[in-house]
Formats: sequence, C-alpha cells, structure tokens
Amino acid sequence: MISDGDSKTDSLYSKAGVDEPREQQALKGMLHWLKKTYSFRTGIGSTSYSIGHFANVLNMGGGLGLVLTTDGVGTKLMIAQKLNRFDTVGIDCVANNVNDILCMGAEPIAMLDYIAINAIDERVLEDIAKGLCHGAEKAHISIPGGEIAQVREMLAPAGEGETALDLVGSAVGVVALSPERDDLPQLIDGKRVEPGDLVIGLLSSGLHSNGYSLARKVLLEKAHFSLDQEVPELGRALGDELLQPTHIYVEPVLSLLKKESPVHGMVNISGGGLLNLGRLPNECSYIIDNLPPVPPIFKLIKESGSISDAEMFATFNMGIGFCLIAAADAGQAILTEVSNAGYQAVILGKVDGKPGGHILLPDYHLKGRGDVFETGQ
Amino acid sequence: MISDGDSKTDSLYSKAGVDEPREQQALKGMLHWLKKTYSFRTGIGSTSYSIGHFANVLNMGGGLGLVLTTDGVGTKLMIAQKLNRFDTVGIDCVANNVNDILCMGAEPIAMLDYIAINAIDERVLEDIAKGLCHGAEKAHISIPGGEIAQVREMLAPAGEGETALDLVGSAVGVVALSPERDDLPQLIDGKRVEPGDLVIGLLSSGLHSNGYSLARKVLLEKAHFSLDQEVPELGRALGDELLQPTHIYVEPVLSLLKKESPVHGMVNISGGGLLNLGRLPNECSYIIDNLPPVPPIFKLIKESGSISDAEMFATFNMGIGFCLIAAADAGQAILTEVSNAGYQAVILGKVDGKPGGHILLPDYHLKGRGDVFETGQ
Repeated sequence: MISDGDSKTDSLYSKAGVDEPREQQALKGMLHWLKKTYSFRTGIGSTSYSIGHFANVLNMGGGLGLVLTTDGVGTKLMIAQKLNRFDTVGIDCVANNVNDILCMGAEPIAMLDYIAINAIDERVLEDIAKGLCHGAEKAHISIPGGEIAQVREMLAPAGEGETALDLVGSAVGVVALSPERDDLPQLIDGKRVEPGDLVIGLLSSGLHSNGYSLARKVLLEKAHFSLDQEVPELGRALGDELLQPTHIYVEPVLSLLKKESPVHGMVNISGGGLLNLGRLPNECSYIIDNLPPVPPIFKLIKESGSISDAEMFATFNMGIGFCLIAAADAGQAILTEVSNAGYQAVILGKVDGKPGGHILLPDYHLKGRGDVFETGQ
Repeated sequence: MISDGDSKTDSLYSKAGVDEPREQQALKGMLHWLKKTYSFRTGIGSTSYSIGHFANVLNMGGGLGLVLTTDGVGTKLMIAQKLNRFDTVGIDCVANNVNDILCMGAEPIAMLDYIAINAIDERVLEDIAKGLCHGAEKAHISIPGGEIAQVREMLAPAGEGETALDLVGSAVGVVALSPERDDLPQLIDGKRVEPGDLVIGLLSSGLHSNGYSLARKVLLEKAHFSLDQEVPELGRALGDELLQPTHIYVEPVLSLLKKESPVHGMVNISGGGLLNLGRLPNECSYIIDNLPPVPPIFKLIKESGSISDAEMFATFNMGIGFCLIAAADAGQAILTEVSNAGYQAVILGKVDGKPGGHILLPDYHLKGRGDVFETGQ
C-alpha cells in the first residue's frame, strides 16, 4: 500500500480519523525492517512478491503458490455495535480477505479469525461466527481456527454497555506457479495488463467495508441521521444499508480463471476506491468513462456532507466492488459468465497507453494517482 | 481451547479482566457454526483437525500439510504503551505464533502482522517492525505482508497522549503428512504420547505473553510498583522484566524434529500455564515432580497479591515456556540438543497411565484439569 500521493492532510477524510499519507510514510519506515525478513526464509515458503500487492505469494515447491493476506472489518464494526447486530460482520471479514486473495488469480481455501472483545458475550460471539460461516460458505473456504482475545482495557466501547470489539481475518489461497499445475488457477499478477484491455467492474453491494469513518461522521454527526431511520432514497433503514454485507466475488471470478483466461489483472476496490487500479504493477493509465449510476447511499453521503467528487471517489467504491482487466475481445463473454454466477458487471472503460498510472474519470473531470483525485482533468 | 473446567468466576484472574469459563462457553456456541465450514472445502486445502489444537492442519496434496495459527500479544501491549517502548513486542508476536506452529511438529515459514492503532505514529510503527524483524530472524520466517488499521474510536489509550494499539500475527508452517516427504518434519499431533514418556520443559524467559491482566493488577494497582522502579529481586527495573520478549523455540525444537524423532507431543505453555498439557489429545495424566525453582518475577506477583499456588500455576508459565513429551530413553539426548541450541531444558516429570488428563504437581499439592488447579491432591 505504498504510494507517492500528494498530501491530503486537510481533507475531511483525514479529520474523520484516517490519515492515509502519514500511513504511507510510516509504512516506508516499517518496510525497511519487514523487507529484511524476506531473506530469512529460503527454499519452501520463500517469498515471491513485495509487500504492497493485494496479497503475497510464497513458493511452496511443486508449482504450488501459497497466497496470504490479512484484513479486518474496521469501523464498520461500530455500526454493528450501535445496532447490537453482529450476524453479518463475519461476512465482511471473509469478503475483505478472499477478495484480496482473488486478485492474484488464486483460489481462497481457508481463513482464520481473530476477535478482540472487551467482555465475553456468548450471543455476540455466536452471531459473529454465524456470519463467518455464511461468508465461508459463499467463498468455499473453511475456517479451521481462530483466536478470541479478551482485552477489555484496550478497547473503547462506542457507548455505555455496548460491546467493543475488533474482527480480523487472515486468509490463504492457492495458485499455480507453473503451467503443469493444471488443478489450480494460474497466477495473475497484473503484469500482462496492456493498453487496449478492458476494465470490467463488478457492482458492489454498498459501502462494503470502506469509508465508514467519513460516512459515520457525515451521516450521524453532521446530518444527524439515526441508524433506525427509514431513508426514502435507500428504501430501508440507514442501519440496514450501512450493515449490508460486502459482496464475496469468489464464484464469478473463479469461473473466469480457467486455463488461458482472458483476465490479465484484478483489483479489489477497497479503501481508496477506483484508485486501487493504480496498484497494478504496470504503469498504465485507466480511462473509466462508462461508470454506472452512483448508488443512492453514496449520493446521500455526498449531499449530507457537501463532499467533492474527488474526495468521494478517493474514499468510496461508488458502486464498483471489484475490477477485472481483460483482453478487449473477451468483454461480452465475461459479462455473460459473471451474470451466470448471479453478479452484475459493467464495462467501465479501458487501459490507456499513456504512462504514469493515472485513473481518469472524464465524466467527473477527475484525474487520480496514488491516493488522491484531482479535478480539472 | 475447549475444556470442561469448573467455574472459576470468583477468582482474582476473572476479576482482572479475563473470564476463561465464559470464554469456553462462548467458544462452544461459535464452534457450532465454525465446524460447519470444514465441509465447505474439499480436495486441496481440506481441514484435518478440529479447532482446539494448538494449530490446524490443511492437506495441500503431495504429502504437504499446511499449519495455520493466529495469536496476538494481548495486554502485554499496555506495558509497552505505558513505557512508550515498542521495539520488542514484535518479538512476542512472532513467538506466540511460531511456538504454536511448532506444536504440530511443523516448521514455521511465514507470518502476517495486523496492527490496529489509534493514530499513525511513524516511530511506534517502525519500532514494532524492528521487533517483528528480530523475531522473524530468530524464527527463520518471512513477514511477507500485513495490515495497519487506523481505528481510533475503537481503541482505548491507557493514558493521556499514549498510543493505543493491538498487535496480532497469523502464521503458517509446513509439515510432512506422509513419510515420503523427507524434506519436512513429520506431523506430531500428540497421539503417540504414552505412559512412561518424559515431560521435558524448556525454560521461559519470564511471563512471556500471558497473565498480564493479573500481573498488572497485582503489581501496579495493588502493590503500587512503578514500571521504572528497580526491583532488587529482579535485578532490574520492573518494566524491563515485564517487557522481556517471549522465547522463540524454533531452533531448539526443529533440531529435534528429524526423521524418527523421539518427540511424541509438544505443548506451548501459554495462557493456562502447565494446564496446557491437557490439550494433548490422549487422556493421559502428567506427573510434574521436578519443577525448577520458580523465577523471581512469579514470586513477586504471588507475594504482592497473596495469590494461591493454584491460581499462579493456572495463570502463569512459572518458568516453563514449552514442553516436549518424548520417549523415556531420549531424555539426555534431548537435553544436550536443546543446550547446544543455546536454550535450557529440564526433565519435569513423566506421563502417567491414569486416565482423566490430570496435571499433578505433587510438590505444590495441586491437581489440575481444564483451566483450574485444585489443592489437596
């Protein structure tokens, strides 16, 4: 997650509790130490890629690659705490991890969960497990272990008597590192992405698990919505919308990862929205000129907080949860395959030969790189 | 971590923030859901063991077993926060994970870290990474990825201006599931443990990462020690003793895991102390009648808090950080091998034929099972 984006410290998002540029700076200091560890392991289990990709790949011998990632649910948990409803955050936990695993062309196989909690509450923990189970079923993975840490003094309850917790997953997936390994999908690391390729977006189910610091600040603190309030534009209560589980893209994506797949690269649209396209290794640009209509929840946040398009697109997925970069002649077949798996996809635009790794949204006059969009393209 | 121990809700430890019996009950509710997930994955990556062992094993095909575990540093982090010293907790994070991986006879290969933090502090994060790097070097693993979650509102700082954070690892290891796989150590799941086997203890470096809720309550709140206070019995400042990194047992243990190893079972002595012996699958009992002298830090806690031996042994490692169960004739060779690797080991006692899975400490008149020791053996 290293980028060289301009400072964004004055943005509302920074004030809302997430400070991306300082995070980038801190990551650089950490990487000095963590990259040293690559040399501590040779032979089976040696590291193939640098930290910064969506997930890392270990060489396990025999053409087998092991893909590892870890991710939590973040402050979406505070919505669950306020509503005292915990049966869906496990789905988010699975989704955030397996969607990252997919980005390497890999098949997720298992996830461990870590739950930090202020006090043991059987009902809360069982509800979390229920969500994890539903997520695991959708992702075709097992959850063969986990950890519960009772660390009351380390966690801040959102309010009197509320459960305070953190929920984090770490997932593993498998991928073929040699063509002989035809029982597994082949590694896709984005290096085959080239000008003329299509960018295909899989629709999101809502906010997924990103931008909640800003969403809570704008909707709950500034606009004084309550979570149980029915919002006509959303057609349901705000809390239901904000707890909508993140889509798990395992089924539609794995159906595309057959031998000789037309897919050249994949991007999980998490924190940073479509700017995540810039994490692909080739320094291509991306012209996104066919975005579907922005879903109502994003419009509500934008209007409630008078937030610029630049900040909205740099913070939220804006309706697109996952991107496939694929050969130009494969577009229609991919749309059909995704639709057959029960998901919706749109051809968003294409890869451009201009170097620099810019993300261009001409409809919004936005040009992005690193972790910021700038207006006046 | 499921056991059927008696209720311990009146114990000081429960009051100090960790409620083991309720945790056990809650785990049962969670397992109903998590065990369902075992069937979601078949073929490569299918699950071999039940949650509750030190780490789980996935069958990766070709005789390769993948061992997974996750564990955090817990409230030892609050000592680091109070001292504003973060360059060793990364070692604890690595230790807690790789020592669990070893218990399956496996060789740790990699760990991911997850850091939840209230606000990005470059110095704190770099110091954590430094500790992670030192731990990884000692454990011969890489740290190929990780996640930093800025979740200010979810974390409680220990005091004004202090950094609040959580640090969790998830590790993978490799093990042979068939004898043909002679490039890897063979799976050791404890099923070969039998009456007459020796229990060999590897000395701990101090508290390791367990019992800090009780230790902090007794030493800081009740006895009013300060962390920078020099304590004659310890020969150093209390804070230095409490931040002493957990021993990483990879080198001495892997040196014993050659083909035809005499080691029948291994136990990481974490929360619950020597009661962890009861986690071995065979329902043997363990007679521990040659414990080395209790290190000064445990005496200090016991005396400062007037804590019973039963509670001390059910909470702390009391000087033993890792146990090997091995064939009776292999004792001396193991002591030599461990010593050659620079660690100290003691023959603590032996496995007994009496069923019931009791841990007997005759010198202290204690008999333990589940998560409690009882007096008057």
